[in-house]
Formats: sequence, C-alpha cells, structure tokens
Amino acid sequence: MAGQKRLSVIGIGAGDPEHLTLQAARRLAEIDAFFLLDKGSGKQDLAKLREDILDRHAARGYRVVRATDPGRDRDPADYRATVHEWHERRADLYEAFLRDELADGGHGAILVWGDPALYDSTIAILDAVKRRDAVAFDYEVLPGVSSVSVLAAQHRTAFNRIGTAVQITTGRRLAEGFPEGVDDVLVLLDAHCAFQRFTGEDLEIFWGAYLGTPDEMLVAGPLAEVSGQIVAARAEARERKGWIMDVYLLRRRR
Amino acid sequence: MAGQKRLSVIGIGAGDPEHLTLQAARRLAEIDAFFLLDKGSGKQDLAKLREDILDRHAARGYRVVRATDPGRDRDPADYRATVHEWHERRADLYEAFLRDELADGGHGAILVWGDPALYDSTIAILDAVKRRDAVAFDYEVLPGVSSVSVLAAQHRTAFNRIGTAVQITTGRRLAEGFPEGVDDVLVLLDAHCAFQRFTGEDLEIFWGAYLGTPDEMLVAGPLAEVSGQIVAARAEARERKGWIMDVYLLRRRR
Repeated sequence: MAGQKRLSVIGIGAGDPEHLTLQAARRLAEIDAFFLLDKGSGKQDLAKLREDILDRHAARGYRVVRATDPGRDRDPADYRATVHEWHERRADLYEAFLRDELADGGHGAILVWGDPALYDSTIAILDAVKRRDAVAFDYEVLPGVSSVSVLAAQHRTAFNRIGTAVQITTGRRLAEGFPEGVDDVLVLLDAHCAFQRFTGEDLEIFWGAYLGTPDEMLVAGPLAEVSGQIVAARAEARERKGWIMDVYLLRRRR
Repeated sequence: MAGQKRLSVIGIGAGDPEHLTLQAARRLAEIDAFFLLDKGSGKQDLAKLREDILDRHAARGYRVVRATDPGRDRDPADYRATVHEWHERRADLYEAFLRDELADGGHGAILVWGDPALYDSTIAILDAVKRRDAVAFDYEVLPGVSSVSVLAAQHRTAFNRIGTAVQITTGRRLAEGFPEGVDDVLVLLDAHCAFQRFTGEDLEIFWGAYLGTPDEMLVAGPLAEVSGQIVAARAEARERKGWIMDVYLLRRRR
C-alpha cells in the first residue's frame, strides 16, 4: 500500500563502520526518520560511531528522533519478568515514533548494533507493537555482521571444529555450568567473567572487547593462563571508558 | 614485511551480493589474484553469483586462478577422517596457489560464502598450510553475513528468546536427537531433512533455501503442519536446479 508506514530494522555491524553491508548503506539513504534510543551515560563512543555512520550514508539533512531508553535492572531477581516489562516500555516508545513521527508512506529506521537476530530485542518489541494494533506499519529486517563473527575473524578461528555444534549463550547461563553436548561456546552479555569458573578445565579462550573499533582488545590462550589477564584488562578498560562490550569463545581442547 | 605474500579470506555473504560489507567490497579491489575452487557440477548459479561480485568490485582485469575442489564422500563411514583427508588435499591446492601464483608482496584472496567462522574449512586449511611451513604468508579474515542471519532476517525473527541459548548444529548431529539445554536450534548441512524426526513434538520451524538469491524459498509454521511441505519443496527445487543450500531454525514452543 502506498500509504503504509514502513520501518527498517538495520543491522549495522559490531563497531567497525566498514562492516556495514552495501544493502544497509543503500537503505540508510532512503530513510525519512531514524529512531535512536539513547542508552544513557557512558556509551558516548557508540553514539558517536552511530552518528558517523549516519553522516556518511543517510540522505542529507536526515531527521533523527531521540528517546531515552527506559533502562532496566541489570541484575534483577526475576530476569524474564523484568525484561518483559522493559520491552513493554520500549514498545510504547516505538509505537509513539511510528504514530507521531512518520507520515503515511513514510519510511523510518531503527539501527541495531551487530545482527538483529542475536540478543537484540528490537524484533520482539516490534511484534509487541503489532499485536497492540494501534498503528499500522510494515517492517523489514536487514541482517548485519555480528560481534561473534568479528571475534572469530580477528582471532582467525572458526566457531567450531569439523561437523561439531556450537552454542551461543549468555554469561548468566554459563555461570550455571558448561553447556551439555558441545565443546565450543560463544558467550555474550557476561558482566561477571563467568569463564573464571572453568579455569580448572582444559579450555582455550578467544576473547575480544570493543570489537571493530579503534579500542579493540584481543586476548587468546589456554584459559587457566590468560583468565586473570582478561579479568584485569576488562576491569581497567571498563573503568577508563565507563562501559565495555565484550564477547568470547570458550573451546574444549582435544 | 614488504616482501611477504598476503592472503585475505573474505566472507561475501550467503547469496545476496548486497550483503557484502563495505570492507569486503573495498578489499576485493586491492587483490592481485583470486583463488577459486570449483565445486563441480550443479552449482553454476553460485559460480555465476561469485563472478558477478568480482566483476562489480574487483580491479579491472582481475586475475583468477581456478582449481577443482578435490571433493569428498558426503556420507562417509568415518566422517572426521574423511574430512581431514579432504582438508589435506585442499591444503595442497592452497599451498600451490600461494607458492606459484603470488609474487613476493602479492595479495591473494579466497572468497567464502556466508561467514568464514561458520561451517567453513578455509581457516583450518590455511592453518594446516602454515604448519607445513613450505611457503611464507600472512593472512587475514574478513567477516561476512552468514546464512543464519539472513534466515532470521527474512523470517523477521531472532535466533533465541530473552536470555536463552541457541545451538548451531548440523543435520547429521540433529539426527541423533534434539540438543540438550536449548529450545532454539539452527541447523545447517542437512541433506536428509532430520527435522522430520521431531514432528511429534511441539516445535516451530523457520526454513529457508537459496537465501538472498532470486530463487529464495521460505516456509515457517508449526513443524507438524509444514514438515511435509518443506520436504516436498526441497526435493522439487533440488531436482530442478541440481543443488540446494538450505538452513533452518527449530524452536520449542512455550
């Protein structure tokens, strides 16, 4: 329909503006209004990176609509309930953007770091907005290069060995134990260095922070040998920059 | 070192030339010689796609060195031994390319569909070439958009639900049972429709073939309802085109 409001969810890569796809770069130039959620203190570097991407690819005089991310308790007693509540508040913001900031036939965009399929809530929230049925819109998703792909590329390793499985999980879940049935585990969202629990096992770690950015940090080696180095480097960087985004691959040795 | 031979392993996305990253597009223009392994019969479409990418991005008059993939038994008794033997024969070809086709200081490239980190053997084979120590070279890996990211984008879904884990595995392994500890499973390299084993369970499937290409096929729904449709569509397409590349997400319903 010509009058339909359109929304593009655009994966923009993990931090290196050169990891943007040709498709994403082209789509940015077609967007009427970008909806940016500010995550609050500390992540000015990421906000700056995002702005650089827009300055380079969006149409001249592009329009930005900002809102403040409602935020959430990072260590709640009931994790799922807390995240659901946070989703609802984000859905309010997305709905308002679609309703108030896009004309009929207008084309908005939400930029997502990495790949929208991996530990990002944008799609789930847009589905919640659709279920409310208060504003009509269509949306598409443009895939991006995820942080785990950049991690593997920088360490020049693959996720897994020949024909084996790999699990992608969170620090929270890894803290409960090494996953069953796999020897290779990609871990995201680990604020507490859950890998420390496994230093007694014969594991290798490939760790990276601020991947694809000028601040990129990489450490790899036998877990027992480099665990302390990662914990220290991570704490120092987090203190110095005010935030950290890191990801790692834990690999059982054969 | 100025005289060092260089090799770039370049992820070129799962099939849509627009999924190439800006970094990959730029690197293609810097390459002296591309090493292409021909997989033999049936995949002319993919070879054509790859050529289109080179025509569009590589330097004028780019040089291509071709070899025939040694191939391997797709259903061997000893899977790992067969793959290892196949890797050694590929390592011979890569070594010959580096030795005979690149001058000192020259820059070669190997193009990889999807992301080099996911079920691709190029990195493992280059490490084998390095261990032989017969030719000196340095190599880098450029990440790409993987087929699983395109699958999720086209179905407008994420890999996993809030804070849960996702496993990436092969059809061969899925045939042995649904992985422990996860509700979301991404399956690649499944020539035998292993999902059929689980039609008695409360699962959803998001399936896609020839992702990102003009021949793209998508089916999603409750597994018990759409399983037969996928098996039939897959067989028909494979017969008609002579090859198929597909991937799917199996999701336990809550």
